[in-house]
Amino acid sequence: FFPDPQTVAIVGCPFSGGQPRKGVDIGPTRLIQAGLVERLTDLGLKVEFDGHLKFEKFLAEQEIPNGILKNPRLVSRVCESVAQTVQGHMKEGRLPVMIGGDHSLGMGTVFGTLSQYPDAGVIWVDAHADINTASSTLSGNIHGMPVSFLLGLPGNEGVKEFGWVKPLLKPERLVYIGLRDVDPAERRIIKENGIRAFSIHEVDKYGIGKVMEMALDHINPGGNRPLHLSFDVDALDPTVAPSTGTPVRGGLTFREGHYVCEVVHETGLMVALDLVEVNPSLQDELSAEQTIAVGCSLVSAALGETLL
Amino acid sequence: FFPDPQTVAIVGCPFSGGQPRKGVDIGPTRLIQAGLVERLTDLGLKVEFDGHLKFEKFLAEQEIPNGILKNPRLVSRVCESVAQTVQGHMKEGRLPVMIGGDHSLGMGTVFGTLSQYPDAGVIWVDAHADINTASSTLSGNIHGMPVSFLLGLPGNEGVKEFGWVKPLLKPERLVYIGLRDVDPAERRIIKENGIRAFSIHEVDKYGIGKVMEMALDHINPGGNRPLHLSFDVDALDPTVAPSTGTPVRGGLTFREGHYVCEVVHETGLMVALDLVEVNPSLQDELSAEQTIAVGCSLVSAALGETLL
Amino acid sequence: FFPDPQTVAIVGCPFSGGQPRKGVDIGPTRLIQAGLVERLTDLGLKVEFDGHLKFEKFLAEQEIPNGILKNPRLVSRVCESVAQTVQGHMKEGRLPVMIGGDHSLGMGTVFGTLSQYPDAGVIWVDAHADINTASSTLSGNIHGMPVSFLLGLPGNEGVKEFGWVKPLLKPERLVYIGLRDVDPAERRIIKENGIRAFSIHEVDKYGIGKVMEMALDHINPGGNRPLHLSFDVDALDPTVAPSTGTPVRGGLTFREGHYVCEVVHETGLMVALDLVEVNPSLQDELSAEQTIAVGCSLVSAALGETLL
Ligand SMILES: [Mn+2]
Ligand SMILES: [Mn+2]
Ligand SMILES: [Mn+2]
Ligand SMILES: [Mn+2]
Ligand SMILES: [Mn+2]
Ligand SMILES: [Mn+2]
Repeated sequence: FFPDPQTVAIVGCPFSGGQPRKGVDIGPTRLIQAGLVERLTDLGLKVEFDGHLKFEKFLAEQEIPNGILKNPRLVSRVCESVAQTVQGHMKEGRLPVMIGGDHSLGMGTVFGTLSQYPDAGVIWVDAHADINTASSTLSGNIHGMPVSFLLGLPGNEGVKEFGWVKPLLKPERLVYIGLRDVDPAERRIIKENGIRAFSIHEVDKYGIGKVMEMALDHINPGGNRPLHLSFDVDALDPTVAPSTGTPVRGGLTFREGHYVCEVVHETGLMVALDLVEVNPSLQDELSAEQTIAVGCSLVSAALGETLL
Repeated sequence: FFPDPQTVAIVGCPFSGGQPRKGVDIGPTRLIQAGLVERLTDLGLKVEFDGHLKFEKFLAEQEIPNGILKNPRLVSRVCESVAQTVQGHMKEGRLPVMIGGDHSLGMGTVFGTLSQYPDAGVIWVDAHADINTASSTLSGNIHGMPVSFLLGLPGNEGVKEFGWVKPLLKPERLVYIGLRDVDPAERRIIKENGIRAFSIHEVDKYGIGKVMEMALDHINPGGNRPLHLSFDVDALDPTVAPSTGTPVRGGLTFREGHYVCEVVHETGLMVALDLVEVNPSLQDELSAEQTIAVGCSLVSAALGETLL
Repeated sequence: FFPDPQTVAIVGCPFSGGQPRKGVDIGPTRLIQAGLVERLTDLGLKVEFDGHLKFEKFLAEQEIPNGILKNPRLVSRVCESVAQTVQGHMKEGRLPVMIGGDHSLGMGTVFGTLSQYPDAGVIWVDAHADINTASSTLSGNIHGMPVSFLLGLPGNEGVKEFGWVKPLLKPERLVYIGLRDVDPAERRIIKENGIRAFSIHEVDKYGIGKVMEMALDHINPGGNRPLHLSFDVDALDPTVAPSTGTPVRGGLTFREGHYVCEVVHETGLMVALDLVEVNPSLQDELSAEQTIAVGCSLVSAALGETLL
């Protein structure tokens, strides 16, 4: 899909409006400071990065409440802007690497990807399903809802702010890896829509090798579709990635997380990557550094860094 | 085997007489305080719990020494009482969940189960085999011996205190998961009796998914026998469950422990559950809380809590 | 290959000249102090140990620089001496267990093994490939080069000090387990020579059980060749073995490390064992004790200690 040598465009998204904890907006800055650009350059990639996206104008606008939803207008504006940036990079032959920020941004990136590549498959690596609707959410935090908007699920009709999010994602083009904290309503939605989900139970049952094989077979049976990898760092175990807003025990190991990224890279089909929910303000500084290092390492693995 | 919605009866057993370390008798209190009843209720179960069993009368009786065995009369009386309680619940259509206390209590619960369901299979999840006889034990701690009494092994003839424990368990109806600290005499006993045992070596060799498949095939080839799950928390790695009397390195991960419970639940055949050897007095309070939390979580998984 | 009961000869090698960090030379002393001899004796082995090798005379000689290489003459002399000791033990029917010291010593032990058993296979368990040549090394540390000398690779022609190291090892008789920090030049060398390597990626993909099966099939398809196991403790994850000179994240678990040793023992074909790179001076004393304990435990597993 891309020229060779590949050009990667870092899309830094210092945004925390999809959830309540301050600090996730400094994630992108810290990942860049930790040397992400140099590390990717060392892989032989051309890396474009000229500063993080600026969301000040959206933050300055007045928010208009919409039921339980928090910051619906703000999240919508930010995501729409991110979607355009992502699609813009793709049109120029660049592979966008979105560094969050919270996972509501995935609404923007995946929408951007599907606008450019309508048949792309999405691999959502996460402890959570992020598939609540405006009707089912109990918290109103939009980072727990992006997938429902992308799918155009019933329950979101009243959220006019997200009218621009056309339902470009089909349930059979989505696969989850690493789930282990899923609301009852989300479980029902996943079941009713026949979405393929590999929870940690399946990772233990089959091993991560077989799980990734099945996951890719499911969304990409012909082996020729573009792939969008959206990696929420809380998919990893909290001992590996402690500095994140909603950690959940029993997660992917350091090795499994990297294996996922390596296998997606091996397909040669990845057209977009998200790395989200690194929040350096949570836990102590040592934990923050550890989480940032893992984040850099996952991005590098997804872009071709190998062990051998 | 049970009416629906299922009724679970918590059988709290504050008992430490099968081993030398004080504190394991407060395990049940701490697990209940941590919200175990509410958590099970949230699963849609009816939960019966009206206080822990009282063993004061047995504790007041004079112990009569019997060779190297420690507290043989006490352990026998307690286990006999527990066996009756377990069988009583089963007769009323309730699923007994025994919370220990030390693993000598397993003699009571498994005997109760087999009295009611003679063809039940037993899954013993443990770092230890708990199969020493009165002749082979080096410590005299009866929590290392319950399986030998249930099987009616030679070497226990002189222990008249346990005359009530008829050999209801057949070796082919027993399977071990997680073994890694087994005495030479125990290894011989396991071999001579053809007992199927999956040590940590086999968990590494095959993965926990395949191990559980083989384990269930072995004790339940037709897929229709009742199952008793007896889970010693020391089966888990000490980094996961530190507060226990005889921790051993290289144990089951948090994920594997839960996977075992989930798979047994999935059979729909579990008729009894033990969770033993949580000793909140050992290690620091943080470790105790961690071990208690894992204990609650394992019980919930065995009773239907799932990741998805 | 050996009489029964087997006699094990401990070859303690207090040597640190193949790398820059002091302290790895006290590894052997600490492993012996931790009770290694007694533990092996308890396995029913005859254990010979009458003190560590003495390298004082070699240390007293003047070093002659050779390009970037550090201590080439010293390392060569030490390794030659170790090779003779190893072969000497084998001729007397003893199984040499070399305790390092740094991994440059592997040049000595493997050469000794191949001198005695020309068709032996070598299992190199390591985070690193240790296959740099004098031309490709960036550090000049010879503990990163022993495999290249054993294979007789081009690039070492100018290193006359190692003229005694005939290329006794064939690439198809070598297999790596656990690689995850391999220099670009080393990757090329591995590829060009068709050396079979199981990195951590493959351990995640297949599981350690299948990896060991494939590894043994590769170097020992007939199941009748002698095997040399060279275990660098840095193959393990740094959380398991922290006190080592070049730790790398994402390593083998405690369980996987032991599984490797157990499986090699099960073949009945192991004729030599190395355990290297335990450096008790690095990290705190608790970490040192943990690393030493793991080292003793790995050696015991390779010599017949089992879980069941
Ligand atoms: Mn997420
Ligand atoms: Mn998440
Ligand atoms: Mn037990
Ligand atoms: Mn135990
Ligand atoms: Mn090495
Ligand atoms: Mn190494």
